[in-house]
Amino acid sequence: MSITNQLNALPTPSLVLDEGRMLANIARLRDRMTALGVTLRPHLKTVKSIDASRRVLAGGTGPATVSTLREAEVFFEAGVRDILYAVGIAPQKLRQVVALRAAGCDLAVLLDTLEQAEAVIAASRDAGFPMPALIEIDCDGHRSGLNPNDPQLIAIGACLDQIPGCLKGVLTHAGESYGAVGQIAQAAFAEQERSAAVQAAAMLRGAGLSCSVVSVGSTPTAHAARNLDGVTEVRAGVYVFFDLVMAGIGVCSTDDIALSVLTTVIGHQRSRGWILIDAGWMALSRDHGTARQTVNQGYGIVCDIDGRILPDLIVTATNQEHGVIAVRQGFSAALPDLPVGTRLRILPIHACATASQFDAYNVISEVAGQPIVLWPRFRGW
Amino acid sequence: MSITNQLNALPTPSLVLDEGRMLANIARLRDRMTALGVTLRPHLKTVKSIDASRRVLAGGTGPATVSTLREAEVFFEAGVRDILYAVGIAPQKLRQVVALRAAGCDLAVLLDTLEQAEAVIAASRDAGFPMPALIEIDCDGHRSGLNPNDPQLIAIGACLDQIPGCLKGVLTHAGESYGAVGQIAQAAFAEQERSAAVQAAAMLRGAGLSCSVVSVGSTPTAHAARNLDGVTEVRAGVYVFFDLVMAGIGVCSTDDIALSVLTTVIGHQRSRGWILIDAGWMALSRDHGTARQTVNQGYGIVCDIDGRILPDLIVTATNQEHGVIAVRQGFSAALPDLPVGTRLRILPIHACATASQFDAYNVISEVAGQPIVLWPRFRGW
Repeated sequence: MSITNQLNALPTPSLVLDEGRMLANIARLRDRMTALGVTLRPHLKTVKSIDASRRVLAGGTGPATVSTLREAEVFFEAGVRDILYAVGIAPQKLRQVVALRAAGCDLAVLLDTLEQAEAVIAASRDAGFPMPALIEIDCDGHRSGLNPNDPQLIAIGACLDQIPGCLKGVLTHAGESYGAVGQIAQAAFAEQERSAAVQAAAMLRGAGLSCSVVSVGSTPTAHAARNLDGVTEVRAGVYVFFDLVMAGIGVCSTDDIALSVLTTVIGHQRSRGWILIDAGWMALSRDHGTARQTVNQGYGIVCDIDGRILPDLIVTATNQEHGVIAVRQGFSAALPDLPVGTRLRILPIHACATASQFDAYNVISEVAGQPIVLWPRFRGW
Repeated sequence: MSITNQLNALPTPSLVLDEGRMLANIARLRDRMTALGVTLRPHLKTVKSIDASRRVLAGGTGPATVSTLREAEVFFEAGVRDILYAVGIAPQKLRQVVALRAAGCDLAVLLDTLEQAEAVIAASRDAGFPMPALIEIDCDGHRSGLNPNDPQLIAIGACLDQIPGCLKGVLTHAGESYGAVGQIAQAAFAEQERSAAVQAAAMLRGAGLSCSVVSVGSTPTAHAARNLDGVTEVRAGVYVFFDLVMAGIGVCSTDDIALSVLTTVIGHQRSRGWILIDAGWMALSRDHGTARQTVNQGYGIVCDIDGRILPDLIVTATNQEHGVIAVRQGFSAALPDLPVGTRLRILPIHACATASQFDAYNVISEVAGQPIVLWPRFRGW
C-alpha cells in the first residue's frame, strides 16, 4: 500500500514522523560536532521514545540528556548508561537518583544553590557512593544558573568537593538563542555559552577545584557555534525533529521538519474563510512560539497528505478538538477547495510540545515501500 | 498521615483534585438545571476519568457528551449508554460509530454539512440501523455550525430524515461566552444560544421534519441562563473543576477551583525576583487563556501546599520542565522566602488543558482523614 493510502487509513489526529528527515537532521548535527571535535549529548526530552533514541544515539548507550527522572528510568532500562538530568534537582528526588545509580546508571544531576549541593553531599554520604553534579551557569539571563563570576560558585564547588566524584563540572544553556534570528546572531549566543561556561570552569579550577565537564548547548547554538575551545560536550534536543520556531529563526527549513499531525477536514465556514479540522490543541498543543517571530505561523502550517505545503494556509485557532485553518493574515490567497473528509498534515510550532500530545509516532520509513510502523512514546514524571 | 504530609510524599509535578470542591461544583450546576427543569448532559472531555465521571453522572449511565470517539469507547465500557460525540463527524469515523452503536451504545453524532449527512445516511443503510445525528447551529460566530436561518438546515434535515431515527435535533455552543464577563453578559449569551437553537428547531419542524433534541450549553451560559424554554438539554464540562479562566469572568471564585498542580521549588534568581519550580508547560500546559482578561494570571496562581493562595504570585513563564514564579506585574509585594524543596500548588488557567498533561488525579477525599487515592485518566483518540 502506498504511503498516501496508509496515511488515509490511519485514525485522525495522528502523529506522523518522517524517518528520512529525522535521520538527516541527526546526521547534520553529529557531523558538525565531529568536525568541531566535541561530544554530542542529545536531549531525549524531544523524542521520549526508545525507538527514536536508538537513532539519535546511533544505537549507543549515551551520552544523553533528560528532563525528567522518568526519562532517565525508561532510557536506562533501554540500555542508555550515561545520562544527565538537566533540570535543577529537587532534594526530594535524590532518593530516585540514588536508586538509579545503585542499579548501574551513570546519572548526573544539576544544581545552582548551596542547599542543593548540601543535599547531594548528604545523599552521597547516606548512599556510600557519590552523586555527580554539574553546577548550572547563567549565560544569558534566560532562566536558572549562577553568573559565571558569582562567588557562590566556589562555595557550591567546595561543598560538592567534600566527596570525590560529586563535583563533575559546569553547564549552561542559552535559552535566549531561540529568539536570535540567523546564524550570526546564533553564533554570538554560542560564544556567550562557551565563554560563560569556560569562565566558570576556570574559576573553579583556579580555586583548586576539579571541573572535568564543560557542557553547553541548545539547537540554535549547537548549529551556529564556530569555536568550542574549552567545551567538552554540547547538548541539543529539538534538532532531531525541527519545527516552525526553528525554521522561523533560520536553523532549518520547513522541508527539514520531520514531524507532522495528520488531520481530517470536518467542516467549513466559507463566509469567514475557515476550514475546520479535527486537530485542536489536544493534538497540536497550545504552543504558539512563532507569535513573536517575524512570521506568525499560528498553530502550524498546513500541508496536503503527502506533506506538500499549501501556500499561506495556517491553523489560526484551536479549541480542544477543533482547529481552524485560514489564509495567513495579510494574504489574499483563495481558500482551496478541501471537502469534508480531506486529509491534511500540520507542521508543528514546537516539536517537543506537539509530540507530547501523542502516545506514539506513525513512522514513515526512510526505505521506500516499507509499511508505516508505530514507535511508542511515554510521558509523566 | 495528614493531607499535608501525604502531599509532601507525592512526586512532583503531580495533579491534585479536591473532591469536596468538585462535588460542590457538580451539585451547583445539577441543582440549577433541576430548578430550570432541563436535562444536564455533562461534557466528560474535562475529566477523562471513569472515577470522576461516576461523580459527574451521579453513578448513572448518561446522558453524557464527549469530544473524541476514544472517550465514547472508554465511558461506554464503563457503563455510560447515552453519549453525544459533539465534534463534527469525519465520514471516516462513522465505522467506529457503527461499531459502538452495534455494541449497544446510544451514540449520536454532530454535523453541519450535506456531505456529512449523506455519509451518515450511507453508513446507516450499510449498518441496517440509524446513526442519530444533531445538526450544529452557530449562535455566535465562534466556530462551526449553520446560521439558524440558513436554508442548508432544511436540506441537511431532509437528507437525514430519509431514514427514521437519523435526524435527532439541533445543537449549539456559545464559545464566545468565555469572553463575557459577569452574569448579565453571560445570560445574554445563554439567550443567544437558546434563541438560535429554538429558531433552528422551529425551522426544521416548520418544514415537517422532526427535532426532538434542542441542545445548548457552555459552563458560563449554563450557570447564567434564566430561561430555557424550548431547550431539552444543557451541556457543560469545565464546571466540574473550574479554573482561572472561569474565575476571571466571574463564573466561580478561586476557592471553587478543584484542580491544582503540586510542584517543588528548585531554585531562585533573587536579583530578578524569580522562584523556579519543577512544573513547566509539560505539567501546566501552555494555555494562557487569561492573557486577554482584565487580570492576566500567566500560567497559574501560586498556593502553598495546603491550597492557600500566596497573594500576587503567579507563574509568569514556562519551559518544558521549568516554571518561573514572580510577583504579578504592577504589584510590588515582596517575594516570600520559599527555600529549595518547598512544595507549592498551582491553580490552572484551563482545567481541561492542565488535566490532560497527567495520567492520574491524586484525589483528596471530601471525607477528612481518608488517604489520597489515584484516579487514572486517559487520553488519545
